[in-house]
Amino acid sequence: MAFKIGLLGLGTVGTGTVEILLNPQQRHPLLQELAIHRVGVRSLDKPRSVELPAEMLTTDLESIVTDPDVDIVVEVMGGLEPARSLILKAIAHGKHVVTANKAAIARFSDEIFTAANQAGVYVLLEAAVAGGIPVIEPLKQSLCANRIQTLMGIVNGTTNYILTRMQTEGSSFDAVLTDAQQLGYAEADPTADVDGFDAADKVAILASLAFGGRIKLEEVHREGIRQITAADITYADRLGFVIKLLATAKRDANSGTEGTEQLQVRVHPTLVPKSHPLANVNGVYNAILVEGEPVGQVMFFGPGAGSGPTASAVVADILNIAAILKVDRNATHPDGSPLLDPLLACSHQHYSAIAPIEDLESRFYARVLTQDSPGVIGRLGTTFGNHDVSLESVVQIGLKDNQAEIVVITHCVREGNFRKALAEIQAFDAVANVPSVIRVL
Amino acid sequence: MAFKIGLLGLGTVGTGTVEILLNPQQRHPLLQELAIHRVGVRSLDKPRSVELPAEMLTTDLESIVTDPDVDIVVEVMGGLEPARSLILKAIAHGKHVVTANKAAIARFSDEIFTAANQAGVYVLLEAAVAGGIPVIEPLKQSLCANRIQTLMGIVNGTTNYILTRMQTEGSSFDAVLTDAQQLGYAEADPTADVDGFDAADKVAILASLAFGGRIKLEEVHREGIRQITAADITYADRLGFVIKLLATAKRDANSGTEGTEQLQVRVHPTLVPKSHPLANVNGVYNAILVEGEPVGQVMFFGPGAGSGPTASAVVADILNIAAILKVDRNATHPDGSPLLDPLLACSHQHYSAIAPIEDLESRFYARVLTQDSPGVIGRLGTTFGNHDVSLESVVQIGLKDNQAEIVVITHCVREGNFRKALAEIQAFDAVANVPSVIRVL
Repeated sequence: MAFKIGLLGLGTVGTGTVEILLNPQQRHPLLQELAIHRVGVRSLDKPRSVELPAEMLTTDLESIVTDPDVDIVVEVMGGLEPARSLILKAIAHGKHVVTANKAAIARFSDEIFTAANQAGVYVLLEAAVAGGIPVIEPLKQSLCANRIQTLMGIVNGTTNYILTRMQTEGSSFDAVLTDAQQLGYAEADPTADVDGFDAADKVAILASLAFGGRIKLEEVHREGIRQITAADITYADRLGFVIKLLATAKRDANSGTEGTEQLQVRVHPTLVPKSHPLANVNGVYNAILVEGEPVGQVMFFGPGAGSGPTASAVVADILNIAAILKVDRNATHPDGSPLLDPLLACSHQHYSAIAPIEDLESRFYARVLTQDSPGVIGRLGTTFGNHDVSLESVVQIGLKDNQAEIVVITHCVREGNFRKALAEIQAFDAVANVPSVIRVL
Repeated sequence: MAFKIGLLGLGTVGTGTVEILLNPQQRHPLLQELAIHRVGVRSLDKPRSVELPAEMLTTDLESIVTDPDVDIVVEVMGGLEPARSLILKAIAHGKHVVTANKAAIARFSDEIFTAANQAGVYVLLEAAVAGGIPVIEPLKQSLCANRIQTLMGIVNGTTNYILTRMQTEGSSFDAVLTDAQQLGYAEADPTADVDGFDAADKVAILASLAFGGRIKLEEVHREGIRQITAADITYADRLGFVIKLLATAKRDANSGTEGTEQLQVRVHPTLVPKSHPLANVNGVYNAILVEGEPVGQVMFFGPGAGSGPTASAVVADILNIAAILKVDRNATHPDGSPLLDPLLACSHQHYSAIAPIEDLESRFYARVLTQDSPGVIGRLGTTFGNHDVSLESVVQIGLKDNQAEIVVITHCVREGNFRKALAEIQAFDAVANVPSVIRVL
């Protein structure tokens, strides 16, 4: 018995998926029981690097998700619509779904998983986060005995590539971005990557899995890397840090165990100590660090994007569904409602409460440009102190255009207090500018 | 409906397992459907850090594996016997098995998995390799679409701890070992760790999963770290390497795609370039790097031992079995024989062919002590050349007790040829000794 696949999209990931399915040798034998049934494309005439019978291709994507012969719909077309509608229609027609679409899942998980649970089908999405790195399934299955405390990762390859090159070359953000665009590592419109939208989608998905509650994407605090300067990278380096765009989800320290629990879910540039496992993750690589009780810290590292890695995750999801279908296609609860594997299906329906960013407790790095006059450092210190912001170090790093460049690192303080102190400091006559404020891990 | 667990062993891992099972809050809700039914111990009187009803404990372990009420037997007693017999008896009585016992699985996988497939039960073993790091299940499920080429890891925490301290402190093997024994990082009899037996068990299990064939443990090439000196670590450092005990399994480059396939499966100290992802894995941490087509390189990193991490893996396996049992307890093939999830069950029965170590192609590091006389380096080079061993560098590192200390690094050469050349060199009058030969990654 073969499992019939309806593929939506034959771009980079779709092509990689077809390449694996057409070459099952030396892979898991279950691959031989998968058959590509229909492939939905935008244009029938486009030259393709994979050979498929012409009659398999169609531009009528809806005919695929409603085709009674299709067992598993694989959505690798991307974008919000018509991807969302096609996924929902596939579910309504009893198809299991595999998707690589982080944007659609991060926004529409509520309606998609509610529909999937009612229809008794799986929606798997390993490929939606960190490409080929196994992280969704390990969170669902291998780490399911843990009380997850923190999940922290480098989940956007483009920004990590840019920051790595800024670090190694001393170049500016703009120069590296332009070059990355020419080399194909960054899009012509880089907003989704460099402003942190892509990472926010991914951390919303990961947080949902790690903490068992849905996440409202608009509640994810998001900052990108456009404001990071070569100077910040140099000073961070001198202080023993590298700058990474980290996506973080963690149980808020002020949460009780019952009822009042809050999560922090945020994406922002972060000074990471060089000895930290994430500090050595460079270039387009991704890594996700999970801290749980009792496992401690585990990290998953690998290629976060690309045709092959992403297709590896897509086909793994297809095989996982096929494996379950072999054991049982139609399990039901005693009342006749469909019964899904409780580790693979989405079992939560509530939304997690997200702590406001002002309540975050973090260390901070700030670079302050002031007049080179005595007493300025003293006034900075006093003002921070008035707001309960204790300082780890205040260093005058250099002198530039007659201005002193002062780098402040705080101890772990409440973000709201830090921001209030900073607002007062920015109003000082002696302070010209505070060009950089970056959280410190 | 609760799933009843029979636990064999209440030592470090058993206690960690009970701690998770008794505290299900904030973990996966499926944990609330697990119940500890019986616990087999060696002594009823021993004080325990977990509270269990006295009537739950028994010294009659066989009564647990034959108890009709038990669904899942969890073997965390370790050792070869009676663990093997109890696992087989549990299987014969239709119990699913979760085990952390690398030694038993590496030796008896043939009879254990044959019995399990006949009885239609799962034997899961995430905890047997690399403690809390998800690697078994990711290999079975998340990476199952790949053609695995190489699997390489630091899978023994004790030796990695010793090598890391030798590296940072410049100390000798013996000094660090003694200290590690006092601190509890090494056993009183350190043989299993420092001579590579533990790592050999683990790489046999990993190779079996990655390449889909059983492995004869006696065919795993095994070298430990006793002969690594502080001098080797210093010279390696100068040349840009750290020394790690690596466990490696890879498809032999000379293998064809059909029939003639051979694997390399080996454990030995290795010079690892400092830029390699495994070079930064220090102390008791473990990491496993998997290279597959099309995923590329992915790495799994975390704590390789300890009560909590290992129990995390044990309970994950229990939950994975419970999840499948919820969907279907009694799936069968059309002929009535039991049908198991093809990704979680063991689907191979043949033994993989292992390439002899002489056929390995590798770079080598050798430290040679010679008389400090002209022409010695020339004779070394000529002799290596006569055996097709081309050299990357020959450096006289120092002079010690009137002897020249020469470090040779070869290009990638056939091990058999290298050993033949070395045997000739050792017979030179001018050569006093070749204290170290280490493969280079």
